[in-house]
Amino acid sequence: MTSQITSRGRLYGIGVGPGDPELLTLKALRLLKAAPVVAYFVAKGKKGNAFGIIEAHLHDAQQHLPLVYPVTTEALEPPLSYEAIIADFYDTAAEVVAGHLDAGRDVAVVCEGDPFFYGSYMYLHDRLAARYDSEVVPGVCSMLGGAAVLGAPLVYRNQSLSVLSGVLPEDELRRRLADADAAVIMKLGRNFDKVRRVLDELGLAQRALYVERATMRNQRIVPLAEVDPMASPYFSLLVVPGQKWQG
Amino acid sequence: MTSQITSRGRLYGIGVGPGDPELLTLKALRLLKAAPVVAYFVAKGKKGNAFGIIEAHLHDAQQHLPLVYPVTTEALEPPLSYEAIIADFYDTAAEVVAGHLDAGRDVAVVCEGDPFFYGSYMYLHDRLAARYDSEVVPGVCSMLGGAAVLGAPLVYRNQSLSVLSGVLPEDELRRRLADADAAVIMKLGRNFDKVRRVLDELGLAQRALYVERATMRNQRIVPLAEVDPMASPYFSLLVVPGQKWQG
Repeated sequence: MTSQITSRGRLYGIGVGPGDPELLTLKALRLLKAAPVVAYFVAKGKKGNAFGIIEAHLHDAQQHLPLVYPVTTEALEPPLSYEAIIADFYDTAAEVVAGHLDAGRDVAVVCEGDPFFYGSYMYLHDRLAARYDSEVVPGVCSMLGGAAVLGAPLVYRNQSLSVLSGVLPEDELRRRLADADAAVIMKLGRNFDKVRRVLDELGLAQRALYVERATMRNQRIVPLAEVDPMASPYFSLLVVPGQKWQG
Repeated sequence: MTSQITSRGRLYGIGVGPGDPELLTLKALRLLKAAPVVAYFVAKGKKGNAFGIIEAHLHDAQQHLPLVYPVTTEALEPPLSYEAIIADFYDTAAEVVAGHLDAGRDVAVVCEGDPFFYGSYMYLHDRLAARYDSEVVPGVCSMLGGAAVLGAPLVYRNQSLSVLSGVLPEDELRRRLADADAAVIMKLGRNFDKVRRVLDELGLAQRALYVERATMRNQRIVPLAEVDPMASPYFSLLVVPGQKWQG
């Protein structure tokens, strides 16, 4: 009897772009087609946006590995703690992925946008990259997808760009926006009302542009004043373009 | 005799990614192959990085339209003014492109990285988008290409990201970096020494990662302390990743 030596699999973090399946890169496509295991984060009962973007390219021999979030909101009643629950979840997800890698199977973890730009893949990377070979394939991030469909040149020449989360406390949001040459505000959702108030106060509302689900099939561009703050989805963002530099 | 009605061409700003030709998107590739005119900005006597990325995909029937910068430095002796010369150049380039559009030919302007993220296409867009149909195809920007090859998750959860130019005055650079959760510093080149000094002063040098020509064939990753400030190329960048959020 001969013993078989199995070399370990490789971990890939693959950005699949902001939503339009055509915004996948050639490299992402090549690696996705070759991966024996394709993993993706997904909310319970959902198909997952990242998976939806690449689904048409997969073939039957590939194993799909959904990593299903145990909670759908960060607002939990004590003694439940979002931080603790999600840390356990990422630990477990990392070990499931590690099981495939140990068995010699490459695992491609797909992420909307870019893996290192607010992507959940980061939490697997932090747990696994020291133990396994890994490679990250950058993707078109949502903020650039947003600027493109809004027709809004984002930053000129030596301007600074501030990428901010709508979750920030109002004071910090105001301070950072007041100091920005150009800004993108992500994670609006329930924070929309607060963000619009700050933009109004700073006189930036006229410059700000809003888009929901940029580059996706159900993309919507809405004038800032007409956005319903109760209906702004998580995948919406605001762009405050830099002042034009006339060359 | 019948008169021919020529409909006007469409202007495309196409991001071709940070350097690796495989980081082109499927959409960029499709539109590039279909465009009768492919335009690109380029320094005198150079081939142009953006053109090099896509060259292999072009075919003989396509017209190449190099838009050659009239100057190679911003540091000019009076009475010469970089701002005035470059404004004239963009005006002229826009009219050359407009000539093709008026003749009914679509023009694809290729840009390294993303067209709206410090891309020269912005100056054509600002001059032409009100007069012609236009579409921007977002691309993988250099900072995300850099983070990927450095294996550096960039921003976690609700952290803010500051994208800064190395050209900024030292005081402003220090103030903005001190206030950043995570930062990317572009346009290093001759500004490298100043930037490293500020990172040292702020205690950020240990966290900072440096890469030249990320994802290009001649990419170099160098420890910060070992970078030769006289030899840092324009296409280098520094990443100060956000503090890890452990889920």
